[in-house]
Amino acid sequence: MNSPFFELLHTDPSGARRGRFHTPHGSVETPIFMPVGTAASVKTLTSADLKAVGAQIILGNTYHLYLRPGHALIARLGGLHAFMNWQAPILTDSGGYQVFSLGANQANAVRIREEGVTFRSHLDGSSHFLSPEIAIQIQEALGSDIMMQLDECPPYPAERAYLAQSLQLSLRWARRSLTARNPTSGQALFGIVQGGMEADLRQESAAGLVAMGFDGYALGGLSVGEPKEKMWEVLSYAPALLPSQQPRYLMGVGKPDDLVRAVAAGMDMFDCVLPTRNARNGQLLTRHGPMNIKQARFREENEPIDSACLCECCQNYSRAYLHHLFRNKEISGLRLMTLHNVHYYLELMASMREAIQQDRFLAFQNDFFNHFSCLPD
Amino acid sequence: MNSPFFELLHTDPSGARRGRFHTPHGSVETPIFMPVGTAASVKTLTSADLKAVGAQIILGNTYHLYLRPGHALIARLGGLHAFMNWQAPILTDSGGYQVFSLGANQANAVRIREEGVTFRSHLDGSSHFLSPEIAIQIQEALGSDIMMQLDECPPYPAERAYLAQSLQLSLRWARRSLTARNPTSGQALFGIVQGGMEADLRQESAAGLVAMGFDGYALGGLSVGEPKEKMWEVLSYAPALLPSQQPRYLMGVGKPDDLVRAVAAGMDMFDCVLPTRNARNGQLLTRHGPMNIKQARFREENEPIDSACLCECCQNYSRAYLHHLFRNKEISGLRLMTLHNVHYYLELMASMREAIQQDRFLAFQNDFFNHFSCLPD
Repeated sequence: MNSPFFELLHTDPSGARRGRFHTPHGSVETPIFMPVGTAASVKTLTSADLKAVGAQIILGNTYHLYLRPGHALIARLGGLHAFMNWQAPILTDSGGYQVFSLGANQANAVRIREEGVTFRSHLDGSSHFLSPEIAIQIQEALGSDIMMQLDECPPYPAERAYLAQSLQLSLRWARRSLTARNPTSGQALFGIVQGGMEADLRQESAAGLVAMGFDGYALGGLSVGEPKEKMWEVLSYAPALLPSQQPRYLMGVGKPDDLVRAVAAGMDMFDCVLPTRNARNGQLLTRHGPMNIKQARFREENEPIDSACLCECCQNYSRAYLHHLFRNKEISGLRLMTLHNVHYYLELMASMREAIQQDRFLAFQNDFFNHFSCLPD
Repeated sequence: MNSPFFELLHTDPSGARRGRFHTPHGSVETPIFMPVGTAASVKTLTSADLKAVGAQIILGNTYHLYLRPGHALIARLGGLHAFMNWQAPILTDSGGYQVFSLGANQANAVRIREEGVTFRSHLDGSSHFLSPEIAIQIQEALGSDIMMQLDECPPYPAERAYLAQSLQLSLRWARRSLTARNPTSGQALFGIVQGGMEADLRQESAAGLVAMGFDGYALGGLSVGEPKEKMWEVLSYAPALLPSQQPRYLMGVGKPDDLVRAVAAGMDMFDCVLPTRNARNGQLLTRHGPMNIKQARFREENEPIDSACLCECCQNYSRAYLHHLFRNKEISGLRLMTLHNVHYYLELMASMREAIQQDRFLAFQNDFFNHFSCLPD
């Protein structure tokens, strides 16, 4: 297979970038949002739904797939693409983020050593070991198009000394990930920049990774509970630490307004459970901002969520009907609202790509913030 | 609007009937199965899904829609068809069955008088009154294509004296339903034959209803807990008590093998929550009989539920994937399995229609029972 590669097609005066990332399962137009398919399913949607709503690439969670149904089983069934019948690109994370999230929630559930990390399954409490090599092995078995290195994701706040030590561990794990990968698989491997909210540590982490040479670079350790201005501070300098000719992935971000600002900061790829999780809680996104379908005022509104929206939900169903389905806990309503939110995110990215191509991203950004009532951070 | 009418197209030597029922929202080819859309949603499916899977007509539950969101609200929003964006025919029940089911489950929840029935809402315990006239008024507000008279559905077993009295009450309610209906609405109204498992009482009920003249006739009070042979006994004579030129609806039935036998007995229309409810419990129907996707043996089976099935689920997803989705409580799996079961039921009906048209229903029936391992009664 051909190696994955990124084409930087255009950079807008704002610094926003328009690109194309080629993978074994087709190319992805950036900037792009990746719906999160935790356990081989973007919750409530099928692969046919994802295709219909225009998803270009989805994310799979290595931690969940490793525990259930298991990467070896998925490999025997032909890989993750075949398993879920999704023939477009897939990015898998390393599993580390979920492991460390567990650690934050359960005392002694997670133990980090040089070799790797020991953790207990949230399903049955069984003990497991994850190393950079094992994370690669699992992701190769899954057959994703983009793999992520195992890194340590420090909590916020964390001591500077701890962050400095941790980023060195993540760099050593990055090197081991590169060594472990099968270079002929065609799967891309991204390194992850850590360093907390400290500019010099971010610089050190980025320089270390870039020297090793990855197919793309992610900013990790953001959107982990820090005040939002801290994240924007990091995004004001960190993208420039990365090679302009490679894709830049902001992990776990974010709200629609975050995506617009992060694209302006020069980031290319994003993932977040927000559009899918919020849909299941009745929170819908529109160009005017969020609305919650639970509210009594929607009980008798015979118009769609957004009259300008072209998604299956808005083309066919009223706010009153969705309000009714939500109150009755009807599964069909959860799916329709998820379709809407995912469509909204993908359309937002498409609008940004168009604006960048036309050198009018700053105007786009102003217009967006003039219309959009932001979600609270 | 034109009045609804039934065309009896063909009767097979077995007695199975091929017909067409014309309604304000199009015609329905019989024999037909009607998926149950309890609260303005066939659970897990959208109206687009129902259309894609080939549903011709669905059923709505007056009891549920009356309580939430309310028939007056639905009427203000343009009726049930507009509310759920389903432009094909809808049959609504009278609400009586759910009311009497409540009565069987809760002491003093239901009180039956000549005038009508008082009951408490299962949602909030509030007190409500349903009469033949109110049942018609609600169904006219919903705008269904086929309305059902309010009847009393006696439990099984019931004393003969009670059954005799009850059927007379249901006949008086039938008369009141006919008087109450707006004859210009174009909505059909069906009478319901009661009389328990007593042949002479069934005869008395049918004769009373036929003398009044309904647009169709249903057999009620079956599949209410009686031994299955009792139901088949009633079905051996009751269809012949009804006019051959009008549709015959067997309420709340049933399993695939029940449908085949009931069509042979001369019935035309059916509804049951089995295909949708069982799908949500992981039980899938195939021409070989039922299978439960929960079973460990499906964990690694890379073939579809039924390799001959043309539904979206079987064309795209493996047993292993569905097993995984079910174990992970993924909503997408519940929908895919519902799509399969509903498709199976609709295809079974289509095969029966074809066999009747070709005068080979007995051969079809033999072939069906040679291949299908029946569900336990």
